[in-house]
Amino acid sequence: MTQVLAQWQSAVDFAQRGGELLGVVSFAASGALLAVRKNLDIFGMAVLACGCALGGGVIRDLLIGRTPPAAFTDLTYLCAAALTAFAIFFRHPSHRLTRSGLEIFDAIGLGLFCVTGTAIAYAHGTGAPTAALLGMVTAIGGGVIRDVLAGEVPAVLRPDQELYAVPALFGAAATATLLHFGAYRAWSGLLAAAGAITFRLLARRYNWRAPQPRHRPDPQPD
Amino acid sequence: MTQVLAQWQSAVDFAQRGGELLGVVSFAASGALLAVRKNLDIFGMAVLACGCALGGGVIRDLLIGRTPPAAFTDLTYLCAAALTAFAIFFRHPSHRLTRSGLEIFDAIGLGLFCVTGTAIAYAHGTGAPTAALLGMVTAIGGGVIRDVLAGEVPAVLRPDQELYAVPALFGAAATATLLHFGAYRAWSGLLAAAGAITFRLLARRYNWRAPQPRHRPDPQPD
Amino acid sequence: MTQVLAQWQSAVDFAQRGGELLGVVSFAASGALLAVRKNLDIFGMAVLACGCALGGGVIRDLLIGRTPPAAFTDLTYLCAAALTAFAIFFRHPSHRLTRSGLEIFDAIGLGLFCVTGTAIAYAHGTGAPTAALLGMVTAIGGGVIRDVLAGEVPAVLRPDQELYAVPALFGAAATATLLHFGAYRAWSGLLAAAGAITFRLLARRYNWRAPQPRHRPDPQPD
Repeated sequence: MTQVLAQWQSAVDFAQRGGELLGVVSFAASGALLAVRKNLDIFGMAVLACGCALGGGVIRDLLIGRTPPAAFTDLTYLCAAALTAFAIFFRHPSHRLTRSGLEIFDAIGLGLFCVTGTAIAYAHGTGAPTAALLGMVTAIGGGVIRDVLAGEVPAVLRPDQELYAVPALFGAAATATLLHFGAYRAWSGLLAAAGAITFRLLARRYNWRAPQPRHRPDPQPD
Repeated sequence: MTQVLAQWQSAVDFAQRGGELLGVVSFAASGALLAVRKNLDIFGMAVLACGCALGGGVIRDLLIGRTPPAAFTDLTYLCAAALTAFAIFFRHPSHRLTRSGLEIFDAIGLGLFCVTGTAIAYAHGTGAPTAALLGMVTAIGGGVIRDVLAGEVPAVLRPDQELYAVPALFGAAATATLLHFGAYRAWSGLLAAAGAITFRLLARRYNWRAPQPRHRPDPQPD
Repeated sequence: MTQVLAQWQSAVDFAQRGGELLGVVSFAASGALLAVRKNLDIFGMAVLACGCALGGGVIRDLLIGRTPPAAFTDLTYLCAAALTAFAIFFRHPSHRLTRSGLEIFDAIGLGLFCVTGTAIAYAHGTGAPTAALLGMVTAIGGGVIRDVLAGEVPAVLRPDQELYAVPALFGAAATATLLHFGAYRAWSGLLAAAGAITFRLLARRYNWRAPQPRHRPDPQPD
């Protein structure tokens, strides 16, 4: 019985580490592709890729008091992010691929990080609601850092953008619920991530947008 | 005697929590109103409101090593900020109100946060000068996060802006002095906050500006 | 023998503190000069000078869990940064001096901070690779904060910029190597800093740039 539990646990750990690495690579790809669009050089690509891929996790680790953050002690993540940037540098993608690729990789990173971020915060002893919040911040943080560094308004705020924070909150809340009721397994975590990714991609595909304030201000001279 | 002191203390605690909640609501309102001006949707309003209302306190908590920050463990603040954003969404204010409202709420938040930020840092064991600095950072931090996220130069730096950091530093230094000499009470703290708010609003009303470098550079071709 | 070692150690400490103060003054000057270029007032100059001079160290201290950060407890650094801003305010430099001065002071700060940042992180118990990373972040962080606050794309990313992160990484890696093999002394640390500064200034002088992605995207309509 204990052995089966231990196997479950190690499967969860393995899946979680795999999920985090995949999230790092996805966000690194979205950062590198934004750098290509902005005509940055290879080091700008690496900086934007690392900032996007590791930024969310660094913010989460600072918030839960895990110092130095995992991104600085376990160099696997940094190397994965840098290698992704170099791979994209040498594959020189076309404009069209750059644009849609950025969105898809960003969605994958968003979905994976809201789940792993919630699980890591929960394992660190926070309550379930706090863990869900931290998971959402982990998922959103990297993209915000990427966009602020590149001089763009973050995707999470852009008025022409489809739902972004809501899928992350959905995935994080689902994960926190699973954790709270002891039902967090490798497959249920992946399911929550897949749900968040699908939610985000459907929102993009079908232009699900949140309402804007109705009686918008008249454009008067200031 | 001890009982009277305890009553004083609980009155101070009550006033401080009330002051912090009012500061959160004020900064949330200023964030949501900026989001209205920028035509963001309802979730963009909520993100900007929460970032502005909770950002300063989160920075302060990270700097004094209180992890996870209060904003993530005590969800009252987050709910207050989100509710403020929703209230403004459904009241659809006019352009004129949006502009002046943003400034007034921002001043109230600034004044309250420089006092509560200083008091919280001091209670956490920092010296009085450090507490004053942290109080000023708490007060300024939220507005800086709001403006950077919205793609604007922060109010604290804008050349066409009236005194902003100085009122916050004034309120924080007054609070640190009160704390250092054991004269920090509910009413003296509120007085310091009121002083900082009045200072900021007077600066706006009468265009008190700091001097710019005198012999400004000639506009030469680079 | 022990006495000689102790003398070495205190010489290293003295040189390190001197190096950090010089780095603070240099970065403060670069922040204040950018503020002059942006026509900010005297308080804007002070905020940008302090943000640039202290920002990198604050980020490093947060990442290694040293709270409150040194910049908030040892007010020498803050005073040095503010005094630098005031000195530049009253010297009203010309446009030409402003531009080249910003670059030179930025290079000096970059070189000194990548060395002291690495040494401080290493002394705090991190491994050599983590220390090198944290040193690079210390060196780059202040400039990124300065540029983001001023509404510019950070120098480390700008496509028209010469090598910036690479000299910082070079200096940090050299310092980490010295520390790892116990060869970190006052003079070898200064040598590493001088190497990084020279690297950066040579990169500027001779326009050493990193390659951009080769098959750049065709400007197609979106």
